[in-house]
Amino acid sequence: MQRFFNNPDFVVENMLKGFVLANPEIKTLKNNERVVVKKDKGSKKVGVITGGGSGHEPAFLGYIGKGMLDAVAVGEVFASPPAKAFYDAMLAADEGFGVACLFGNYAGDNMNVKMAVQMAADEDIDVKYVVANDDIASSPKETKEKRHGIAGGYFMWKVGGARAELGGTLDEVIASAQNIINRTRSICVGLESCIIPAVGKPNFKIANGKMEFGIGHHGEKGNREEDLKNADDIAEEMVNSILDDFEFESSKELDIMLSGLGSTMLMEEYILIGRIIELLKDEGHAIHKVYVGNFVTSLDMRGVSLTVIDLDEEIKELMAYSAEPVGMKNY
Amino acid sequence: MQRFFNNPDFVVENMLKGFVLANPEIKTLKNNERVVVKKDKGSKKVGVITGGGSGHEPAFLGYIGKGMLDAVAVGEVFASPPAKAFYDAMLAADEGFGVACLFGNYAGDNMNVKMAVQMAADEDIDVKYVVANDDIASSPKETKEKRHGIAGGYFMWKVGGARAELGGTLDEVIASAQNIINRTRSICVGLESCIIPAVGKPNFKIANGKMEFGIGHHGEKGNREEDLKNADDIAEEMVNSILDDFEFESSKELDIMLSGLGSTMLMEEYILIGRIIELLKDEGHAIHKVYVGNFVTSLDMRGVSLTVIDLDEEIKELMAYSAEPVGMKNY
Repeated sequence: MQRFFNNPDFVVENMLKGFVLANPEIKTLKNNERVVVKKDKGSKKVGVITGGGSGHEPAFLGYIGKGMLDAVAVGEVFASPPAKAFYDAMLAADEGFGVACLFGNYAGDNMNVKMAVQMAADEDIDVKYVVANDDIASSPKETKEKRHGIAGGYFMWKVGGARAELGGTLDEVIASAQNIINRTRSICVGLESCIIPAVGKPNFKIANGKMEFGIGHHGEKGNREEDLKNADDIAEEMVNSILDDFEFESSKELDIMLSGLGSTMLMEEYILIGRIIELLKDEGHAIHKVYVGNFVTSLDMRGVSLTVIDLDEEIKELMAYSAEPVGMKNY
Repeated sequence: MQRFFNNPDFVVENMLKGFVLANPEIKTLKNNERVVVKKDKGSKKVGVITGGGSGHEPAFLGYIGKGMLDAVAVGEVFASPPAKAFYDAMLAADEGFGVACLFGNYAGDNMNVKMAVQMAADEDIDVKYVVANDDIASSPKETKEKRHGIAGGYFMWKVGGARAELGGTLDEVIASAQNIINRTRSICVGLESCIIPAVGKPNFKIANGKMEFGIGHHGEKGNREEDLKNADDIAEEMVNSILDDFEFESSKELDIMLSGLGSTMLMEEYILIGRIIELLKDEGHAIHKVYVGNFVTSLDMRGVSLTVIDLDEEIKELMAYSAEPVGMKNY
């Protein structure tokens, strides 16, 4: 395993040390080193938090910052943080206006968030949550509530965070975050698996010449294994699967995001996005904004996720808020 | 080769199509599709351009935008654009105040830029240039002028672009860009080679359990092959090699950038940066700002570059200018 590691069993500790040293705007909690918080709370507002397993960098830590997240509970690689970490994040983010916990739909996270909400309620802290379920491959349309959350979380944090920053109440923050998740769909394609550091070998196999359409962010089996297609055909299959899942008219205005899953070259992403944009325009859609890069990854998996957002005026207004996520100082 | 490609021989064409579709602020020139320019020139000012081989995305294209680059000449993968492309970029960027061509030190680029400068002079366009040579592994201190340019280019474009945007003359833009390059040093470490699309196999070999200290951005042999070390020891070797090359007092204030070379996980970068920051602080340095991400890559090489900048007041002021590079809409 050719990697920049010290001890593969301690990648999360080692990463957190670097993350906090590189970003003086944040700190770990004294009483819980697996909770990272924004130092300067700024304006009094609803707290916005998330949490989840590590290995999806820059998610979730990188999205702490003004207009996005106030605190993050950090789990081991691909494993939920404990309820106590979510609870400590809630405590840290509460300024008396309640806390919105905006997280992705996975069994462990669900269980631990719900326990933490109960713990917070016992302390009279009002916590409500939204569960991102944008991954259309993880369950059929009829059982949407079982779907996992993937790159759509980025937009949930951006919209919920902006609503909070602009003075929204807890119910308003929750409503805005739920609105964008209702209007967001994602699909992944995997070409090569990732390696979990402490395991040291791939956690699943994709044969040479094959691809996994609809793969999950932790190597969850996709909808189907297929022969590896060329980029234009993969783009078409991704776009069609998402359009089939939506129920909007052709004239809708969309935001789209293509996120690499770890080892994908930006060159490949731009090759894909060109065809994706063409196809969406051919279907009569207007493209409002295009995001290309590594936003939510899956360790060093070779693959991409495509996310499409059916915009409305509220979302456009909140997305325009210029957030300051600490892990995105690329300017 | 498990990649998102259509035809490996046409990755640059395919990528350019997507890049322009995803970024409505830019366009390719009608008379030269290998030159990409900012559509809205905005304020009348000195033009700032660069150019180079593809495969280093988001460089160079991604840094077009207000406060950075006005035009980019695009070469094939790892190959210089022809003189005509540099010349067309100069023509496109000229608004009557001259053009600063800020490029990296490679034989092909050097030759073609100099030919293009001559072609521009024949049309009475005043072009001056700065050659980035921040890669300390590519030649000894005594022959600094032979060193290659790597991630330091990002800062040259940022500082030169800001000076132009703020109304600087051509000589002032050139002086600012030269000043930051004089104060910038970089070093790479490679763990696994990259694959040139049209070739379809690695362009060099790093054996398992080995690493290449000082590798170049096109697979140029490093200073030395070594046994693969742990992250903390690699961080120390990188920091020491850079500090040895500088001649500044310990109390200097520094900006630092760690850039992945393509397939490196952000998790690995944060593991490295933690130790890098500790070591620089131990040497008495103050850390002003830390950049972590993929800024200048080498296709899908597994490796990183560390860049250190010896700040002065001018650089700090110009770096604070909030540029709007199109390939960095991560917010």
